[in-house]
Amino acid sequence: MFGVTILGNNSALPAYDRHPTAQVVTLNQHQFLIDCGEGTQMQLSRYKVRRSRINHIFISHLHGDHYFGLPGLITSMGLLNREHELHVHGPAFLKGIIDIILQAADTRLPYQLHFHPLVHEGTIVDDEKFSIDCFKVFHRIECWGFVIREKKNLRRINKDTINLFAIPTSFYDQLKLGEDYHNGEYVVKNEEVTLPNATPRSYAYCADTVYTESLAEKTKNVSLLYHETTYLKDLEERALKRFHSTTVQAATLAIKANANRLLIGHFSSKYEGLDEFLAETIEVFPKTELAIEGVSYRVL
Amino acid sequence: MFGVTILGNNSALPAYDRHPTAQVVTLNQHQFLIDCGEGTQMQLSRYKVRRSRINHIFISHLHGDHYFGLPGLITSMGLLNREHELHVHGPAFLKGIIDIILQAADTRLPYQLHFHPLVHEGTIVDDEKFSIDCFKVFHRIECWGFVIREKKNLRRINKDTINLFAIPTSFYDQLKLGEDYHNGEYVVKNEEVTLPNATPRSYAYCADTVYTESLAEKTKNVSLLYHETTYLKDLEERALKRFHSTTVQAATLAIKANANRLLIGHFSSKYEGLDEFLAETIEVFPKTELAIEGVSYRVL
Repeated sequence: MFGVTILGNNSALPAYDRHPTAQVVTLNQHQFLIDCGEGTQMQLSRYKVRRSRINHIFISHLHGDHYFGLPGLITSMGLLNREHELHVHGPAFLKGIIDIILQAADTRLPYQLHFHPLVHEGTIVDDEKFSIDCFKVFHRIECWGFVIREKKNLRRINKDTINLFAIPTSFYDQLKLGEDYHNGEYVVKNEEVTLPNATPRSYAYCADTVYTESLAEKTKNVSLLYHETTYLKDLEERALKRFHSTTVQAATLAIKANANRLLIGHFSSKYEGLDEFLAETIEVFPKTELAIEGVSYRVL
Repeated sequence: MFGVTILGNNSALPAYDRHPTAQVVTLNQHQFLIDCGEGTQMQLSRYKVRRSRINHIFISHLHGDHYFGLPGLITSMGLLNREHELHVHGPAFLKGIIDIILQAADTRLPYQLHFHPLVHEGTIVDDEKFSIDCFKVFHRIECWGFVIREKKNLRRINKDTINLFAIPTSFYDQLKLGEDYHNGEYVVKNEEVTLPNATPRSYAYCADTVYTESLAEKTKNVSLLYHETTYLKDLEERALKRFHSTTVQAATLAIKANANRLLIGHFSSKYEGLDEFLAETIEVFPKTELAIEGVSYRVL
């Protein structure tokens, strides 16, 4: 299972029951929270996402609509007697904010809170089966995007053929890595006893950003690309002035990045309906979906 | 018009669609926000309270469920191009938190934000027609209650009798203050040309506190007393340990303060239903109401 659930799809001002930015990425047994606007803890309850399973939180930047829900979530996790550690990744300045807020309340968390400042582009979480990288995007203040990539998957043992050969099980890990089996007398070619696994999948989150082609390189070939569309295409000038993007710009980036699918969100509160966002974007990049709160999108 | 609208009635952990503490007091054309838990700006929209009319915000203490909605509200007021000044009253430490958050976002508010630290008990807002005082309550960290009192109301000119006497209109203000009219030849007794006005009303908010009789003196004779009831009466020991109160304690304070009516809230998330809170409280103090979100209670 690899997917993303939208908890908030609106830009800075909450409106029309749309909430500020937050989304949960599920990758097998892992859950990652990306951004944490005000009310995220309530949205997690509303959509029955278990906060105890969230071990990593990524904050793109320090505009309030992307993190004002974080102090409440951290505090509530403590009140719920969380004991396992929590990792927060965000701009360096965030640590001071969390510290002063916990100090003011005289709060001692019952769990370890590890803060990881985002400093350089590159890998920030490296697991056996996936990696998470951060990259810079271009907004009014320091702002980061994130890309979660499955690692090249191991081959699978072919249960129909493996017993035809006397291969010790201690060699199975090497078979999964693609090696042939040699025992001095004969050779078993790897593809005779293994099957290829699925192509690795990936999800990129571009946070708040002006349109820039340089992001295509950072998000190359992703399975699902999230790009903000704060404005419809007629407001390109306003988007540029406010360091945001339009529908057509998001679609153009999806083409340049060779993304498989595109997810758009961070809609300005000046728009009550969202149909136009979808219509304008699919005209340029057909495999687009609107980020709707409470909906999960699979990374395929 | 004098009343209070509940925006959040739950204690620390949001639950059962109950929100952390926030309430709006309306007094004629004024609106005062007391506490501002996470999600308050959404609750203001939900219950159609115009945030532009709020000029004073009072924060009782720095536990997150009483102020984590404040940064978002301050920021949103700026995004909505507010131009008139806003006054925030709260524990001194709050200023540093607001400052660091605005600094991190590189936010320049388009309006003047005045911060007033709570230092001594006494009057913090003094208007011609009302006053607002703060007083200390007893919680795990520094915590303040607030009492809003109408001033002794002026007498009203009696339109049925005023024209029977030749009294210059320039003397009307003195008549409203209760003075008799002397013109050298005769005396018009004040009560012949004026009518008494209504008795001044008052609202007290006791924030988060253990039960202590000393609060009765601070809230003496109020028309409407808000007192927290985090727990039912059987958990008095837990209430004491966590610096909170029970139903029976709130009712007892209402008796000792000689309050006219009692409003109870800040219900623990361990309780799904609230009927027991009301039942236990009215047994001791019959004129009690539950603080329910979205409901306005008149101060009579």
